Amino acid sequence: MAKQRKADFAGAGNGGKVSARYDKRRREVVDSAARVFAERGYHATSIEDLVEATGLQRGGLYHYMDSKKDLLSQIHHRFIEPLLDDARGIVERGGPPDEVLRNLGGALIRDIASYGDQVTVFLHEWRIIRDDPEWGEIRQARKDFEALVGSVLRRGMDEGVFAIRDERIALLGFLGMFNYSYQWFHPGGRVPAEQVAEEFCDIFLDGIRA
Amino acid sequence: MAKQRKADFAGAGNGGKVSARYDKRRREVVDSAARVFAERGYHATSIEDLVEATGLQRGGLYHYMDSKKDLLSQIHHRFIEPLLDDARGIVERGGPPDEVLRNLGGALIRDIASYGDQVTVFLHEWRIIRDDPEWGEIRQARKDFEALVGSVLRRGMDEGVFAIRDERIALLGFLGMFNYSYQWFHPGGRVPAEQVAEEFCDIFLDGIRA
Repeated sequence: MAKQRKADFAGAGNGGKVSARYDKRRREVVDSAARVFAERGYHATSIEDLVEATGLQRGGLYHYMDSKKDLLSQIHHRFIEPLLDDARGIVERGGPPDEVLRNLGGALIRDIASYGDQVTVFLHEWRIIRDDPEWGEIRQARKDFEALVGSVLRRGMDEGVFAIRDERIALLGFLGMFNYSYQWFHPGGRVPAEQVAEEFCDIFLDGIRA
Repeated sequence: MAKQRKADFAGAGNGGKVSARYDKRRREVVDSAARVFAERGYHATSIEDLVEATGLQRGGLYHYMDSKKDLLSQIHHRFIEPLLDDARGIVERGGPPDEVLRNLGGALIRDIASYGDQVTVFLHEWRIIRDDPEWGEIRQARKDFEALVGSVLRRGMDEGVFAIRDERIALLGFLGMFNYSYQWFHPGGRVPAEQVAEEFCDIFLDGIRA
């Protein structure tokens, strides 16, 4: 993956400080690109738009990406990696299924709150990701997150605390409640992310309790 | 609105038959455009793309639209009008709040199942609709639908059958469950739209029951 190779290159012989500075700048470039992609759409965004949004020269921009498509990939890693890390930790720690599901809901909405533009790009450009052979890694990450939530639903059913008729539909309902917040959630708005997660989980958990 | 004016013009002196034929063809053009906008995004779609998608000449295309933006507006009317008609009828007929909410859920998923591309465009291009002074009518239609669902939640609370802590968040959770299905629902797939609506309503209604 381009970002890894470039990070290694920047770090080689320059010490960790340069590499850390490069990584920080790279994240800023990725986030600026996410804002433009979210606003105009991936296909309509030109390299000139990215030059303008990042304040870099064209050559400087290519220091942080291989291509527009590589940037799209980096945007996805930006929000999926911390989400998957969080979710794996939550599921590994275990505990009662309703508590675990509550924690997963919290992690999901915090991720959407932190990476609103990146999540917007992920959902809006899903048809690209879905159909392109090169995007297997992102598709797998989406499946991995869904599998983590699904495993908690199944454990709750096995332990007799959840009563769910169709596990897949219940999972999609849970994801829908939370993911749709990319359309309306504003950090700093009337209701903080934690409270949204709590209210959604109150409704959803009461809805599936045996 | 362009489509009305043009429909009148096409009907003038030609009898209803020509007007009906014009309207049918216009709907086909709007639906073809919705497919392209959903696939590539509104900004990235050129008039040439629309010419190709509709099989019309450039001049013929302008017989059915004033501009690309007018087409975007027509796409919204295409799925919002039948949804609002249905939803108003359901709420006016009255009945127990849980049944009314169930019927609203059914109407919403049927609309998403019938107009998947149009709903995709609506959700993906929401930033245009949200910010443009000319789009007040579409913003109002979205508010009207939300108000209908909200009125049922409120009546349920007033009648003591629903217990909801934050009405707005509950409403957004309900809409999220259903609206997110634009990402995954396939007509003719494993689970028919009616069953999805039933399962979501089972969970949501059990989740808010007093």
